[in-house]
Amino acid sequence: MSLVIVGSIGLDNIETPSGKVTNVIGGSASYASIVAQNFVDTKLVGVVGTDFSNENLQVFKDRNISLEGLEIVAGKTFRWGGKYNDLNKAETLFTDLNVFADFNPKIPESYLPSKYLFLGNIHPDLQLNVLNQFSKAEVTACDTMNFWITGAKKKLIQVIKKVDILFINEDEIKSLTEVENVYDASETILKLGPKFVVVKRGEYGAFVYGKDLIFNAPVYPVRKVVDPTGAGDSFAGGFMGFVSKMDNLDNDIIKKAMFYGTVTASINVENVSIDNVKKMTLNEIEKRYEDLLKITQI
Amino acid sequence: MSLVIVGSIGLDNIETPSGKVTNVIGGSASYASIVAQNFVDTKLVGVVGTDFSNENLQVFKDRNISLEGLEIVAGKTFRWGGKYNDLNKAETLFTDLNVFADFNPKIPESYLPSKYLFLGNIHPDLQLNVLNQFSKAEVTACDTMNFWITGAKKKLIQVIKKVDILFINEDEIKSLTEVENVYDASETILKLGPKFVVVKRGEYGAFVYGKDLIFNAPVYPVRKVVDPTGAGDSFAGGFMGFVSKMDNLDNDIIKKAMFYGTVTASINVENVSIDNVKKMTLNEIEKRYEDLLKITQI
Repeated sequence: MSLVIVGSIGLDNIETPSGKVTNVIGGSASYASIVAQNFVDTKLVGVVGTDFSNENLQVFKDRNISLEGLEIVAGKTFRWGGKYNDLNKAETLFTDLNVFADFNPKIPESYLPSKYLFLGNIHPDLQLNVLNQFSKAEVTACDTMNFWITGAKKKLIQVIKKVDILFINEDEIKSLTEVENVYDASETILKLGPKFVVVKRGEYGAFVYGKDLIFNAPVYPVRKVVDPTGAGDSFAGGFMGFVSKMDNLDNDIIKKAMFYGTVTASINVENVSIDNVKKMTLNEIEKRYEDLLKITQI
Repeated sequence: MSLVIVGSIGLDNIETPSGKVTNVIGGSASYASIVAQNFVDTKLVGVVGTDFSNENLQVFKDRNISLEGLEIVAGKTFRWGGKYNDLNKAETLFTDLNVFADFNPKIPESYLPSKYLFLGNIHPDLQLNVLNQFSKAEVTACDTMNFWITGAKKKLIQVIKKVDILFINEDEIKSLTEVENVYDASETILKLGPKFVVVKRGEYGAFVYGKDLIFNAPVYPVRKVVDPTGAGDSFAGGFMGFVSKMDNLDNDIIKKAMFYGTVTASINVENVSIDNVKKMTLNEIEKRYEDLLKITQI
């Protein structure tokens, strides 16, 4: 089984209470793909500029991620700068789209037999474009953010109508549906088409809502959050990686996927940028999964 | 097995988005005792004024709660007025201590063979007073609030040093310990003496922290919160009721107690004042307990 991941690949400047880093690997597809590769053969679609170093590319190669769908074009890579005063919310300092501004994702022929597709947080137009190119994907999922809910709501709704799984933050689902109760808001999303909505609640964990399913995953008890950047993408990577590996969307698999997502996000936030993600192992993931069972199972 | 509960018994005025009620039964000991009686023989210690009607007293009698420790003294009952703009935080409109101002809790002789004691949220001086009178209690627990953390911190610490279980809100444990990470803050509390700290996170559920134990209970997925008043007291009543019934503080019992507390709190918040609490049945509790297993167990 294999999983195609489409999204941003960037260079980040990140300021946290622990310190400041510049020009480090970022982007939704970077986090999600490196995490997912622990579970399943993962194929990347994205774009970087010529300033994206060979050393950076090597990180993806070292994890055996297929890069046929990665375009390298003249110009600068997408760049994001963020600052965390408290560790719950990033303040965006700058977003330079650069080569991402003209990104027109192309799914290589060789990717089309993949059954699973994850659309990281990018413009709904691009997400729709990929969904149209890749209509044979049997299981599709997407993430999004407030920026698109405010700026491209109609397009986003079109995307949501086409996917099987929506990943979304608690405040975002409320603002998207204009429904205050999160379970009612989730029900509203199911009526649009998705089989499952994964609602992320930051330091309070996440829940998944489906037909005949509400399942809660608490946050993994991390003692020191160093950098929350990519937490949601790492969650989606773990979730989608596991689901693709099992090749199954039964409720029992979805529940376990919630725990795998929780675990991969927790490993990510304990270090800056992708520093923990790039050395994550399945052993480490399985160990934390067992820990999570201890703190939740009667 | 039996459980002694000491705390406030009051008359509340409550304003919520669903409406306004006046002169309804309130107070930490009211909620906790009526809930706990579903599990175990419960004995109340408290004070009311002569304005506390027979009809109100009958509510406790109907639930077979021992009232030997309930003093009725000349004057007005403790009164609290609160308003909920959003349903997460009460704005206190007034607090009239009335007969509670001179409350000097006395544990009747007949209560002393009880093994379990729960001290609802009252002045730490009163909590200490009870702990001293009732030094034979084998398992003791207390709740508290920000007001005492700010105004009577030293006394509160003395109480905490003597109890086995502390119930406390997330923001309160941070302010009490001056430790930002909730798990580290919980560790700080354990070092003072308690075997377990139950940290309540409102709409995000609760976790319990003990030696060799972190266990998470998500909130029960309530569709419409009507009145959160007494949610913490109902939680403590369910938790302590179950623990007393099982007569055991093993980790496995504590985990289940977290779920019983979650369930009893959820039933409470779906109606105003004690309206749901006073008709709560063990059947109803067990049914929701099963639901909670479904949303948490792999």
